Amino acid sequence: MNWTKTALTEVLDINYPIIQAPMAGGVTTPELIAAVSNTGALGSLGAGYMEPEAIRSAIGAIRSLTNRPFAVNLFVSKPVAADGERSAWTRFLLEPFRQELGLPAATDELPSPPSFKEQLAVILEEAVDVLSFTFGIPRPEELEALRQQGILTIGTATHLMEGILLEESGVDMIVAQGSEAGGHRATFNGSHEQGMVGTMALVPVLADPLNIPVVAAGGIMDGRGIVAALALGASGVQMGTAFLSCPESGAHPRYKEILGQSTEIDTTLTRVFSGKYARGLKNRFIDELQPFSNELPDYPIQDILTREIRQAAAARDRPELMSMWAGQGCALSAAKPVNELIAQWDEQVGRLTGRP
Amino acid sequence: MNWTKTALTEVLDINYPIIQAPMAGGVTTPELIAAVSNTGALGSLGAGYMEPEAIRSAIGAIRSLTNRPFAVNLFVSKPVAADGERSAWTRFLLEPFRQELGLPAATDELPSPPSFKEQLAVILEEAVDVLSFTFGIPRPEELEALRQQGILTIGTATHLMEGILLEESGVDMIVAQGSEAGGHRATFNGSHEQGMVGTMALVPVLADPLNIPVVAAGGIMDGRGIVAALALGASGVQMGTAFLSCPESGAHPRYKEILGQSTEIDTTLTRVFSGKYARGLKNRFIDELQPFSNELPDYPIQDILTREIRQAAAARDRPELMSMWAGQGCALSAAKPVNELIAQWDEQVGRLTGRP
Repeated sequence: MNWTKTALTEVLDINYPIIQAPMAGGVTTPELIAAVSNTGALGSLGAGYMEPEAIRSAIGAIRSLTNRPFAVNLFVSKPVAADGERSAWTRFLLEPFRQELGLPAATDELPSPPSFKEQLAVILEEAVDVLSFTFGIPRPEELEALRQQGILTIGTATHLMEGILLEESGVDMIVAQGSEAGGHRATFNGSHEQGMVGTMALVPVLADPLNIPVVAAGGIMDGRGIVAALALGASGVQMGTAFLSCPESGAHPRYKEILGQSTEIDTTLTRVFSGKYARGLKNRFIDELQPFSNELPDYPIQDILTREIRQAAAARDRPELMSMWAGQGCALSAAKPVNELIAQWDEQVGRLTGRP
Repeated sequence: MNWTKTALTEVLDINYPIIQAPMAGGVTTPELIAAVSNTGALGSLGAGYMEPEAIRSAIGAIRSLTNRPFAVNLFVSKPVAADGERSAWTRFLLEPFRQELGLPAATDELPSPPSFKEQLAVILEEAVDVLSFTFGIPRPEELEALRQQGILTIGTATHLMEGILLEESGVDMIVAQGSEAGGHRATFNGSHEQGMVGTMALVPVLADPLNIPVVAAGGIMDGRGIVAALALGASGVQMGTAFLSCPESGAHPRYKEILGQSTEIDTTLTRVFSGKYARGLKNRFIDELQPFSNELPDYPIQDILTREIRQAAAARDRPELMSMWAGQGCALSAAKPVNELIAQWDEQVGRLTGRP
């Protein structure tokens, strides 16, 4: 198996069929993205939460560090009407955490999330190489504008029906997000449970009927996972947790430290941080809000309501109140520089596939 | 990669590192088990629900069809005290289904489940080749008796802590049951959610620290899954759903028919049939009882309370009231004879690993 020559490396013009997952919230620094792209894989900027101008300046910073391709990732969300009653109840639930962190009482005012339309305008103006997205499908005219600009598109599916909808929309490839994956579930069609399909089952189920390349994500931590994913029919892998502990990653030092001590039983699925299910390391914030999980508002409202708490927790070194996303393979994470990690995986793949 | 020579094929003296999963409830007929073992893999009798003398006669029937090794699987359960109130409530909930099927009203009498001690006595007397088990660990003196009799033991783990407990108990190998797997969750330590680890993450997490062979289970449906599991560090695979539709399988014809039309979004995790979480195809029985899931008694009480309903549903060809266990790879199941299936997987593995 010549693992460095797949549909993914061909289309993206990269040397390794590895995409560094777009982890939103400050993890994907220009340094991480550039290190990944400079090593021959594809770095991704997790820009879902970023204001348009912040995206533009991040793209500039990445371009000052690499001239290789990289991706930007956005959230395709349906507009959610603010639910005054749920929001008021959640503000009440969150108040003790704000007090504990020394934050002033929350106001009734709900800041708007970044506009997808304006985020997309920056992507088009900057003509980035790849736009990946999650939580849905951009509108046909948006996808057409991206095509016109020569920007490759990658959608995210958690079961076959989503894969078919994405392929029919005309995207260039699909990330198959298995239930092992850290961070937000990409499910946009059907129930949360229907989208909880393990990578081992999901990849062949998508790769068989779909005609565009499928990228495996979820639980892939090293060369063994890469060989497994390619054997299952994927054209490449997307790895997030595996890059979290790299010195180039922007993950909080305490987050990296706790990740290094965590195992598969330490992650949980929760919607307490953002209103959308995501997999992360258990902590006090999750424990205390989990009983109210079904009463919290949907994404992005809940995300906005908890933002100041998460930011203050990070600033005050309080991991028990931070969101620390992680996949089920977290016990295998290694705190090594990006180029050493990828070289190690390359060596592992070679050994497993009998490459001389 | 010489896939027919692993720690598993060596220890079990078989030609393919494949264990046919022990599916309880009539699926694992002597014909299925013998066909698997005669083809060079390891057949397994799902004997958890069987009375000791039924196990003895099944072993005799298998031995009349094959002289190759096979396994018997038992449930290691803690005794559960009957909860009169919960049972009464559940009888009330189940009464409409009994009426619909023409069954008489349930009595208060609760038949005892088969005795593990007596089941084990048959295994020891018959000196079967392999005993696999799930839901816990037999007592030290029981494991010692099995060793004395030369019976190999296989435990089932859903996360590393369970794997370590099993290895310390002295079992010969461990099945790592990923969250994709059909049928009952084997979790015996920690919460249900902690045991829901996808195969892609679970296998390397167990294979790295454990010294005994690890067998991958969950979502493995063909030669692609076999290559993936071996790359991840497994010494072999356990496959259940992949054998369900074989003509040799004892699965109900309607169950096979529905399985053939099902995809990954059609399975769900439920405790409504047995009191223990298991993955199966959604149907009306699950839909109607799911809202009461947390109020139902534990295994084996709930299993006993629903038994007559499941049996009558099968006899009356009513799949909407049957338990139809299936894994998340069910869309890939193929209704072929066992020897054709295994030959096809062998060919796939050869192609993927570049074997001439």
